[in-house]
Amino acid sequence: MAKRIGILGGGQLGLLLAQSLIRLGAEVHVFDPDAQSPACQMLAHSSSFAWSNEEELSKFFEGCDCLTYEFENVESELLFRLEKQKPLYPAANVLRVTQNRLSEKRFLNNLRLPHVHFAHFKYEDLASNRRRIQEFGLPCLAKTTFGGYDGKGQYFLQTPEDAENFANQPNLQGVDFILEEAIQIAAEVSCIVAHSKHGQEIAFPVMENIHHEQILDLTIVPSVVPLAVQVELIKLAHEAARRLNVVGLLTVEFFLSRQRPRTVNVADIEGWYIMINEFAPRPHNSGHVTMKACDISQFDALARILMDVPLTKPSLVSDDIYFMGNLLGDVWIGQQRNELDLSPLKHFPSIKDVVIYGKKEARSKRKMGHFVGQALNYEQAIADVHEFREALSVPPKVTQHSNR
Amino acid sequence: MAKRIGILGGGQLGLLLAQSLIRLGAEVHVFDPDAQSPACQMLAHSSSFAWSNEEELSKFFEGCDCLTYEFENVESELLFRLEKQKPLYPAANVLRVTQNRLSEKRFLNNLRLPHVHFAHFKYEDLASNRRRIQEFGLPCLAKTTFGGYDGKGQYFLQTPEDAENFANQPNLQGVDFILEEAIQIAAEVSCIVAHSKHGQEIAFPVMENIHHEQILDLTIVPSVVPLAVQVELIKLAHEAARRLNVVGLLTVEFFLSRQRPRTVNVADIEGWYIMINEFAPRPHNSGHVTMKACDISQFDALARILMDVPLTKPSLVSDDIYFMGNLLGDVWIGQQRNELDLSPLKHFPSIKDVVIYGKKEARSKRKMGHFVGQALNYEQAIADVHEFREALSVPPKVTQHSNR
Repeated sequence: MAKRIGILGGGQLGLLLAQSLIRLGAEVHVFDPDAQSPACQMLAHSSSFAWSNEEELSKFFEGCDCLTYEFENVESELLFRLEKQKPLYPAANVLRVTQNRLSEKRFLNNLRLPHVHFAHFKYEDLASNRRRIQEFGLPCLAKTTFGGYDGKGQYFLQTPEDAENFANQPNLQGVDFILEEAIQIAAEVSCIVAHSKHGQEIAFPVMENIHHEQILDLTIVPSVVPLAVQVELIKLAHEAARRLNVVGLLTVEFFLSRQRPRTVNVADIEGWYIMINEFAPRPHNSGHVTMKACDISQFDALARILMDVPLTKPSLVSDDIYFMGNLLGDVWIGQQRNELDLSPLKHFPSIKDVVIYGKKEARSKRKMGHFVGQALNYEQAIADVHEFREALSVPPKVTQHSNR
Repeated sequence: MAKRIGILGGGQLGLLLAQSLIRLGAEVHVFDPDAQSPACQMLAHSSSFAWSNEEELSKFFEGCDCLTYEFENVESELLFRLEKQKPLYPAANVLRVTQNRLSEKRFLNNLRLPHVHFAHFKYEDLASNRRRIQEFGLPCLAKTTFGGYDGKGQYFLQTPEDAENFANQPNLQGVDFILEEAIQIAAEVSCIVAHSKHGQEIAFPVMENIHHEQILDLTIVPSVVPLAVQVELIKLAHEAARRLNVVGLLTVEFFLSRQRPRTVNVADIEGWYIMINEFAPRPHNSGHVTMKACDISQFDALARILMDVPLTKPSLVSDDIYFMGNLLGDVWIGQQRNELDLSPLKHFPSIKDVVIYGKKEARSKRKMGHFVGQALNYEQAIADVHEFREALSVPPKVTQHSNR
């Protein structure tokens, strides 16, 4: 009988993981409250109930041989109970540490892993100490400890007025925050490592990420930061995964700065200051590029771990530069269409693959698809991403359909 | 609303095509009499009825925007009626020509495309003319005109006794046959071309195929036959696809000989004699290698045509040799297991991908999976295929499961 693998979350990461699992012969089951989520609408075995429905989640666990998650905002306390039924990879404990910015930062601090200088506070405490933020130091970022992604729940506080305005928002009462030093970022990079139950450890090439309005805009491999820095990043990613006891994937997002930040826990390699920003114990948006750039993708690696198949070391398939650009709902809105017209692709031979997630509703800033391409240099890669996206973001001139 | 694409046939080719379609945002529907076929058991939308059930096939067509097939033994007369409902790519006419060896050979002959010398006969006519086969010339092959694949329905006739024995099989009464000259084959190669509705034409690199007991054993790209020969093969494949009015994929299988065969319709390039063996108007077993070797796979190309997305020219991703090895049911039988243990993979860093089709029953010679790898030379590629398959074909020594 085929091994039954459960995925919590039916978004694009779950869909692409499901495809890798199916290619290894798995029977894939997906759980997502939204029956129209990309994986739910495609797969034969899907369950759509609220995340809080422990009875249905328990049934779902019972129907699988082992499980994973592609979505971090599942209540980890619930998963602690459920993983007693069937193994969850990575374990609930990994999610408990990584889904909360405070526990993540404390983990880094306890293990002396490099990270940005931070402080924890409850929003209501600002009432008794209005100078707290300025004492921490401006400019800084206030981030909710739980539930934020793609810049949601983040406040950039540059001036004393910003701090004052932030302290006067009634809707934030009861919310837990951390303050983070605002550092001069020279580069944001991510490193994905995969650790198996049997002690196999592999790392994907370091990926360079460029954000736009706090959402990942494009990813490029290989990174142009010095090789010694990349070696250190991979070492740190493995170290973090080992200390978290990750079985599965761990994506580590790093900030790199050329100016020494205030934190004492910083790794300094050839004048590059390395700080771990955050973890994602799952496939990552930046890792989409591995589907074309590497001989094994992030999804294949996780599928192998779940299916007990040995890992092979990922390598870049050529000496070229590979890039990934996100397609947000704004592109669909720009085309004034529900179904994206991809005919501009014919003018972009450098774009090798386009993936459309099949989400029904195109909302601004919603991740709806991505593309991967190949270039001879970094500048061309960035130019290609922007030009292809611009070409896609206007209403199509002619419809070229002809049924012969 | 997502475009609804129907696939006739739920085997491994249908499953992998479905994955490419889903990555382009399609809603995929599959029709296969076997509800346990690879694609049917995975996809949300599947229909399982007999191929002869025109009512259900008609309903299936109605629920799709356009359709294709991954399986050639569908009655083409039925498809002529159904394609009036919804467009079928390639059209039923392509299938009518290619699913019958006689019409295929007549098509080649009429267009003066190079092919093996042949003759058509009805089995019962051998009773009135027992010398017919010897008059055609020994050694030769007798092949049923309809329904044969993987060497099924083929008889190699070397001696007058073989011919006599062949003529005395009561179970062959009423069967239509062609005789083919037995040629000295220097190489068997395939070329897959993709033609879009909008006139775009692309070709995949020529693939070299090695058969074992008439079933494809391994495929290697790039081919080592002279470049001028490869250029001619691609030219012939495009020419055939144009003359057949293919919208979709056409796989052209060629025989290459270094000795001039009897046929007058032969292309001679630098002493290499080229003959078209047969066509498959669909993704092909040999094309699995394109999933790792090329920057766009055969499945992606067909998915783009069905989804009206422009094609990009396929290129090999590196200068290495890529190889694909089939995994037949015999490997499962060798392991004495239902679920294949892939732990030998850890000793084969050259093997980059393994695909398991999820078929429930492992029968001898049944295609159950394949693997793709990378080598620096042709000899190493062949050695790796055999060594990996041998390592897989013995019962696993230790089970290494440990749930931590």
